[in-house]
Amino acid sequence: MTAIDFSAFIDRLATVSGEAILPFFRTSLTVDDKNTGGAFDPVTAADRAAELAMRAMIRDTFPSHGIVGEEFGPDRPEAEYVWVLDPIDGTKSFISGMPAWGTLIALTRKGTPVFGMMHQPYFGERFSGDGQAARYRGPRAARDLMVRPCESLDRAVLFTTSPRLMNTADRAAFGKVEEKVRLSRYGGDCYAYCMLAAGHIDLVVETELKPHDVAALIPIITGAGGIVTTWEGAPAEKGGRIVAAGDKRVHAAALMALRAG
Amino acid sequence: MTAIDFSAFIDRLATVSGEAILPFFRTSLTVDDKNTGGAFDPVTAADRAAELAMRAMIRDTFPSHGIVGEEFGPDRPEAEYVWVLDPIDGTKSFISGMPAWGTLIALTRKGTPVFGMMHQPYFGERFSGDGQAARYRGPRAARDLMVRPCESLDRAVLFTTSPRLMNTADRAAFGKVEEKVRLSRYGGDCYAYCMLAAGHIDLVVETELKPHDVAALIPIITGAGGIVTTWEGAPAEKGGRIVAAGDKRVHAAALMALRAG
Repeated sequence: MTAIDFSAFIDRLATVSGEAILPFFRTSLTVDDKNTGGAFDPVTAADRAAELAMRAMIRDTFPSHGIVGEEFGPDRPEAEYVWVLDPIDGTKSFISGMPAWGTLIALTRKGTPVFGMMHQPYFGERFSGDGQAARYRGPRAARDLMVRPCESLDRAVLFTTSPRLMNTADRAAFGKVEEKVRLSRYGGDCYAYCMLAAGHIDLVVETELKPHDVAALIPIITGAGGIVTTWEGAPAEKGGRIVAAGDKRVHAAALMALRAG
Repeated sequence: MTAIDFSAFIDRLATVSGEAILPFFRTSLTVDDKNTGGAFDPVTAADRAAELAMRAMIRDTFPSHGIVGEEFGPDRPEAEYVWVLDPIDGTKSFISGMPAWGTLIALTRKGTPVFGMMHQPYFGERFSGDGQAARYRGPRAARDLMVRPCESLDRAVLFTTSPRLMNTADRAAFGKVEEKVRLSRYGGDCYAYCMLAAGHIDLVVETELKPHDVAALIPIITGAGGIVTTWEGAPAEKGGRIVAAGDKRVHAAALMALRAG
């Protein structure tokens, strides 16, 4: 069975997780929830509901597969095929009602991500990839994803979620990249990587990512012709400090600037 | 004629401007544009196309009204009714393919905004208000907008587009607010004010806004029960340094912290 066969199943997973999440987005549940003294957390509720729904569907359909999710403990993480789930990437955008969050669904085989999807259920946007190709489907268009060429850092548009998430040394190294680029923007989470795959931006540099923050994005980025590694140039699927670029020249220049920092 | 009568017309303006903008969003025009040496700027093209379309429609329908837009010179700015237009607020998000940008359309009477709309044409979201009430219409819901209560800064979620847009003194003052709040987030532009009107966040603090950056948002915020002024507590419609809050207690506390800074 190849990764391609999983494509329709992942679409169903995304649909089910979206249905679990949407009742909690842009609602006033926190305000109305007088009985628990405001302790009710809509993003945690949405995260759990979506992850439980996806876990149930995976167990029913592929009982031999493993599952690693953000909210619950790992289940057979040593299996050949393991699903890596992050129901809501971009929780701070989610709780603020802002659009830039999404559900990340990865399928790994022997530890390597072979299929990934980013799904924004409120706006109906799906970005998917298998390392060979990548695809966008949205409210107004469906098209293949392809990175854009960018020859050097001084022409690059850079995103990071926030430098305030970095430790002091990493922030200094990040600053060496930031001072060279054409435009630096904060925020974006999973959306930034998808905009890179779509050829709208050139570079994403982040730190302290978990495997579930990045696994689904790797086959999308590489399927669109991009490159994503750690700051040391190692495979990205374990998370940590990550550099993604649409053009390998920008990737190499960013790694060099980060080392100099 | 009251502001309410303009509501259907503003909806048509938003539709027409959206149709002018969408061909330029998330396209690879910049990459394909070899002949002009990369000088083609899709956001400027979209801005101009949308503003021209709105200006033509306003002149046809209300020939006595004035028009002030971001892209072209003022036309009868001394008229009783003046339209204040910003076709793309959030240009950096727009050029990056990110969702958080919108078209701002304000109608002012004797200098005071009496109707405002924020329209995100790609996702089909409209936020509108007339100072008495405010309304959201989107792909999955339509509802009245209402701010949420928030008793103090330490419970508030704060947005600003970027502290890097502030001068040194303003950034220091902003820091006094930022260090007190529960959560501080960067980015958002017009979306942040609309999320405040919708009761998802509590405070927006910005500097160096133009009238067209804020005029349309004022009747949405006040229509939803919020308050928006300059850092000195003066009317906001001329732009400058702006504080918007859903709860007047947070607004007062923010003004005080900014003065202390």
